[in-house]
Amino acid sequence: MERRRILCVIADGMGDRPIPTLAGRTPLEAAKKPNLDRLAERGITGLVHLFRPGVPVGTDVGHLCLFGYDPLQVYSGRGPIEAYGAGLTLVPGDVAWRGNFATVDGEGHIVDRRAGRIREGTAELARALDGIELGDGVSALVRAGTEHRAAVVFRGAGLEAAVSDSDPGAAHPRDPVKEVQPRSSSEGAQRTAAAANRFFVVAQEVLSAHPVNQQRVAAGLMPANAVLLRSAGVMPAIPPLTEMYGLRAGLVSGEDTVLALGTMAGMTVVTRPGMTGSYDTDLGLKARCAVELLADHDLVYLHVKASDLAGHDNKPEEKARVIEAIDGMVGQVLASYSEPLLVAMAADHSTPCEYGEHTGEPVPVFISGPGVRTDDVRTYGERTCARGGLGHLSGQGFFMTLLNLIGKAPKMGS
Amino acid sequence: MERRRILCVIADGMGDRPIPTLAGRTPLEAAKKPNLDRLAERGITGLVHLFRPGVPVGTDVGHLCLFGYDPLQVYSGRGPIEAYGAGLTLVPGDVAWRGNFATVDGEGHIVDRRAGRIREGTAELARALDGIELGDGVSALVRAGTEHRAAVVFRGAGLEAAVSDSDPGAAHPRDPVKEVQPRSSSEGAQRTAAAANRFFVVAQEVLSAHPVNQQRVAAGLMPANAVLLRSAGVMPAIPPLTEMYGLRAGLVSGEDTVLALGTMAGMTVVTRPGMTGSYDTDLGLKARCAVELLADHDLVYLHVKASDLAGHDNKPEEKARVIEAIDGMVGQVLASYSEPLLVAMAADHSTPCEYGEHTGEPVPVFISGPGVRTDDVRTYGERTCARGGLGHLSGQGFFMTLLNLIGKAPKMGS
Repeated sequence: MERRRILCVIADGMGDRPIPTLAGRTPLEAAKKPNLDRLAERGITGLVHLFRPGVPVGTDVGHLCLFGYDPLQVYSGRGPIEAYGAGLTLVPGDVAWRGNFATVDGEGHIVDRRAGRIREGTAELARALDGIELGDGVSALVRAGTEHRAAVVFRGAGLEAAVSDSDPGAAHPRDPVKEVQPRSSSEGAQRTAAAANRFFVVAQEVLSAHPVNQQRVAAGLMPANAVLLRSAGVMPAIPPLTEMYGLRAGLVSGEDTVLALGTMAGMTVVTRPGMTGSYDTDLGLKARCAVELLADHDLVYLHVKASDLAGHDNKPEEKARVIEAIDGMVGQVLASYSEPLLVAMAADHSTPCEYGEHTGEPVPVFISGPGVRTDDVRTYGERTCARGGLGHLSGQGFFMTLLNLIGKAPKMGS
Repeated sequence: MERRRILCVIADGMGDRPIPTLAGRTPLEAAKKPNLDRLAERGITGLVHLFRPGVPVGTDVGHLCLFGYDPLQVYSGRGPIEAYGAGLTLVPGDVAWRGNFATVDGEGHIVDRRAGRIREGTAELARALDGIELGDGVSALVRAGTEHRAAVVFRGAGLEAAVSDSDPGAAHPRDPVKEVQPRSSSEGAQRTAAAANRFFVVAQEVLSAHPVNQQRVAAGLMPANAVLLRSAGVMPAIPPLTEMYGLRAGLVSGEDTVLALGTMAGMTVVTRPGMTGSYDTDLGLKARCAVELLADHDLVYLHVKASDLAGHDNKPEEKARVIEAIDGMVGQVLASYSEPLLVAMAADHSTPCEYGEHTGEPVPVFISGPGVRTDDVRTYGERTCARGGLGHLSGQGFFMTLLNLIGKAPKMGS
């Protein structure tokens, strides 16, 4: 067998439900996508339940599954993944949080969980908080994330992640800031909760006095005078794919969380200005970068976020247009790569436009290229792929199926 | 319901991929197999992922799964299975290895991992090594296996199997003999590694001076002056099927590993001269023995190895011929057995001719006979069975499905 490589396109949140305004079709079914349909017709198709049937997953868990990991073994909250994405290198013992810059009134009630969707000045605010001491030998590392987000890491001895959030969450955006509580009776959980509550007080003092906020107030904007914390986790133990399978894997994406996961998984990650993780991302540039990676990688993931945004934004026509653009991008790859290649496509979860959030429906997949046992499915869609030759797979099963087709799946037994 | 019995044919390594020289068909799809197609048409079909989707398995693990076991619970390396196959009865605490008689030069470099594929005299060489003391209260039991192979067991207190191989493996056939290293810091692993390294030295002394080797050297043949060790394991805890299910199971095979697994599983195993585990095996004799076993067994496995050899040898036409011969063998059974009978067929893994090694694709299966819920699949093949009524099963799931059809699957709950 000649050396084979795989390109796997991940259309974030692509899976959907039938939509009345699309004549009962899903955005994928409604989209004109000659390249994707031809690949599905010549390949094998199926449905992938990322984790387990019916269980909605986040972008982080969905990608962990597509990358072959068991989330029960490696996942420990999104905080650590966001910290990686923000450029913080965790060490064992760190507890990492997702943070929001928020606006809080004098009584500790939340005025806005996102400080009026602040975009400017968060790097300076983060710098003002970075390194503050929380007592008990614990210090905080803080980095700004995209828009109103921040990555917060507590570093010190004997910390544990079994603690609640100070952020009341999107369901209760105007509630009081919650006191962080230990979720276990361990000393470590109590120490972490105390540090988190101290962090809130100190951060509020520092931020309220900060020139960025004084200017915001003067300009009639909501001050980012607090940091809400959620999703505490410790450094996940993700063994790199290179070590586990001798696999050279690459990833092209414009989204921080996905890029962070790729880095943790030992992939060569590529992102460039112009890859925005939004509707205006440069798919032509992504295609070119993917082709470059294929030169010396066994498996290259090409991630596009915009399909998920359209799902969250309840825009089925927009979602179909994103899929049509992805179809063009795949055509560009096929036109510019001449070696034996398997092309696969998947999604990290469903984000139905009617619901605007992640759901637990499986996602349609295809694998097309040399050595594949074909089926008689002729178009790429949620319902056609339900009859496909791959049947119903887990995300991990799909990953091992890809590895198997390029001779990289380790044999069990002899 | 009358008493029902099952014959399950196992075509080793039968699963394959589309092959250009067979007009894009697999060997199974290309073979003329009227009996198998009729059974599939009148029965229920599906795909079996022996262990998990995409994961290639060895003959040992594949059969463990078909026999209903969870390899994670019972599998501990092929060494113990080969020891059983060579007639050594293990006791708890033994560490068993697969051994090769090999030719090594004065510097400890391997000249040939198989001592010129030695066939004659290995029983005498094994006897010369059997019972040698390795210090620390550890002794070695040694038996010759087929051709250049040997089974080696270390017996003594406090041994563990977490050690590396001395055999550099088929990928590095001319490398130096490797020192066996403990894979854990435990005292038991260190003791086993020390015994293995001592075994190599003592065996080399004994073998170099042995008349069999002096005659080989005089005849210009490579001396079998060393034993390479690999796949250390401890006695697997395989509860017999008789005990677990009150099942009387039988097995007809010409292959040592499969026969050993059958014995460990508590089956009545039948092998005869003429059952060679190769292309020239006597399928008519196998059919007659299977029919005899059906007289007083609930479930009889009929194993044929040749389909796997054709896959390893990259011979799709030969593989199709083997399947046609199996079809004739099944016809012979059906013609000579008149009681109510379910006939099933499976494989222990795929061995695609284009690849020449085991791969992780699922294998096609059918079950045909009284009580079966039929489907509309009309021929037996990798792609037709993907639409079958059994769906996608694990090897264990397939085993329980067979047991269920003969009323032998234990009920959970009441």
